[in-house]
Amino acid sequence: MAQKLIYTNHVAQELDRLVEAIAPSNIVVIVDSNTKSFVLPRMQAESEAIAKASVIEVAPGDANKNLESLSSIWKQMQEAGCNRLSLVINLGGGMVTDMGAFAASTFKRGVKFINVPTTLLAAVDASVGGKTGINYNGLKNEIGVFNEADAVIISSTFFNTLNDQEKLSGYGEMIKHALLSSKEEYESLLKHDVTNIDPDKMLELIKSSVAVKEKIVTEDPREKGLRKALNLGHTVGHAFEELSIERKSPIPHGYAVVFGIVCELILASKKAGFPNAEVTRFASYIKDTYGVFPFTCKEYDRLIALMHHDKKNKNSDEINFSLLEAPGTIVLDCVASDDEIKEAFDLYRELSGE
Amino acid sequence: MAQKLIYTNHVAQELDRLVEAIAPSNIVVIVDSNTKSFVLPRMQAESEAIAKASVIEVAPGDANKNLESLSSIWKQMQEAGCNRLSLVINLGGGMVTDMGAFAASTFKRGVKFINVPTTLLAAVDASVGGKTGINYNGLKNEIGVFNEADAVIISSTFFNTLNDQEKLSGYGEMIKHALLSSKEEYESLLKHDVTNIDPDKMLELIKSSVAVKEKIVTEDPREKGLRKALNLGHTVGHAFEELSIERKSPIPHGYAVVFGIVCELILASKKAGFPNAEVTRFASYIKDTYGVFPFTCKEYDRLIALMHHDKKNKNSDEINFSLLEAPGTIVLDCVASDDEIKEAFDLYRELSGE
Repeated sequence: MAQKLIYTNHVAQELDRLVEAIAPSNIVVIVDSNTKSFVLPRMQAESEAIAKASVIEVAPGDANKNLESLSSIWKQMQEAGCNRLSLVINLGGGMVTDMGAFAASTFKRGVKFINVPTTLLAAVDASVGGKTGINYNGLKNEIGVFNEADAVIISSTFFNTLNDQEKLSGYGEMIKHALLSSKEEYESLLKHDVTNIDPDKMLELIKSSVAVKEKIVTEDPREKGLRKALNLGHTVGHAFEELSIERKSPIPHGYAVVFGIVCELILASKKAGFPNAEVTRFASYIKDTYGVFPFTCKEYDRLIALMHHDKKNKNSDEINFSLLEAPGTIVLDCVASDDEIKEAFDLYRELSGE
Repeated sequence: MAQKLIYTNHVAQELDRLVEAIAPSNIVVIVDSNTKSFVLPRMQAESEAIAKASVIEVAPGDANKNLESLSSIWKQMQEAGCNRLSLVINLGGGMVTDMGAFAASTFKRGVKFINVPTTLLAAVDASVGGKTGINYNGLKNEIGVFNEADAVIISSTFFNTLNDQEKLSGYGEMIKHALLSSKEEYESLLKHDVTNIDPDKMLELIKSSVAVKEKIVTEDPREKGLRKALNLGHTVGHAFEELSIERKSPIPHGYAVVFGIVCELILASKKAGFPNAEVTRFASYIKDTYGVFPFTCKEYDRLIALMHHDKKNKNSDEINFSLLEAPGTIVLDCVASDDEIKEAFDLYRELSGE
């Protein structure tokens, strides 16, 4: 991967060093209202680069990762006098890094940007790998480009502002990476209590986790093949996430992913030889740690319709999955019929004790 | 250059061959109201790919190369069921190829696209070289990305729908390419009457002209150095173009460029050793062929302010030019003071007989 990943708990120091090397004509820092309150003041005190940066604030939450917010970023970049030699620093969760990176990638056909993820979810997933973009007309990440940050500063120092749910959400993507990597990584991850890990140990775990994604993205930056492995859990997970939004009680992304992984491991046990006993054990771990996603058989059709809309499906009459034969052994492009998916839903609900 | 440039006067045939090789899941063709009336019906009759494509129409003219039109393209791509394996064909002038290419480059983080320029200006300039984008908040090409078309089909068959002014406008960029290339190319170009060249000869001239741009863009796709040579005539030219818009009587882009070249050759004679006699000869050719851009000394400050806003200037307190020492000998990053530019304006007006 061309981008520079820097793991550190001395963020301000590393950031200032990077900015000095880049020597931009001016700097803007993009924050949402949360990071503006909880992270920016500290960074302004500690980092020379952030202290002199123009601040661009966006409203928080995935619902605001839209064209209106993007356009307001562009306008404020103009007002701040940005040119091709400007630098954008994205300081926030995945919503800020996705949209801020897209704004930087398109302003005057691209200026440099550095991601400083402030949530566990963004640190292990969104901020790394070059996917940028916004939601559009009801579809997630519909508009964007592939473009890697000049650097990503990954740290665990901001996580004291996160609640347990936010930590578990990020840990969901780490569990996914571990499953894609090896039995050892996966076994090891299930032993930790993410709500109570010290920052240095956490940084070490993040580093191993991002290395899994990094390896895959380096081989296939544009998602033509192997990168689809990173969709593990996301085909079903996105449908759960969308349904939860339709019900007006949205679940965190990483929760949707782990619930999705359970369903997709059930499918994998049927279609790719993933061991049954391991499915049961994993489902029980997830239930104990994350709870379950409750739904009835009346909602199966809606869930399947949502999956058909998922952009990863080439044709709308089949649903594609990245499945596992075992932890670390990936089988891409498995097609499942609607009936097979419904059968997996039945089993998921049974394992959930619904 | 990664993109495939195809020179042909059998457009439909070549296009169908390309589309067959790409085998897209579906096709959209982007046109403006002009190409919809004058070019699309013929292409629908001759090309299988165009016949089955969904048509997306945008309002014509640079004023409509904006976020609203872009958003309407994205929406219509969704409605047409586009996914990552869709193909976009941009059928039009530079406005359609710039904006259509940007829409394709950002829809689901990028789908394939083919440019089919229908004007001489787009054939020799806009459609080739990977610059995509829209105007934003009063600034030209403020938002966009560098992304090359999968193929560009360059032909002269559509030019019978162009008037003399449109032909001369395109020829302006060809004159620029010739000046960047060599004394021979430049001498040869001044001999033709562009309003009256047969299509096959025209195609041959375009091919030589695009080769000049191609060579430069291949060396420096992101405009970090040599590509700035292609700005010859554009620093002053853009200011003329903007002023003409403010006066509510816009001049065609290629006219602004050749008037800009005259001014920049005057500067070059002072700062880079371009021969005085050649400036006089060139100015006289341009005056006979294109007329002159009339302005008074009261407008000098406005023109210079417009140049300071030009995005190619790193710092707003100096103005950068790509100048010539001789035809084919380029001197990048020449800085001129406001007084030197005003002196060049004086001489331009003198040579123009104003």
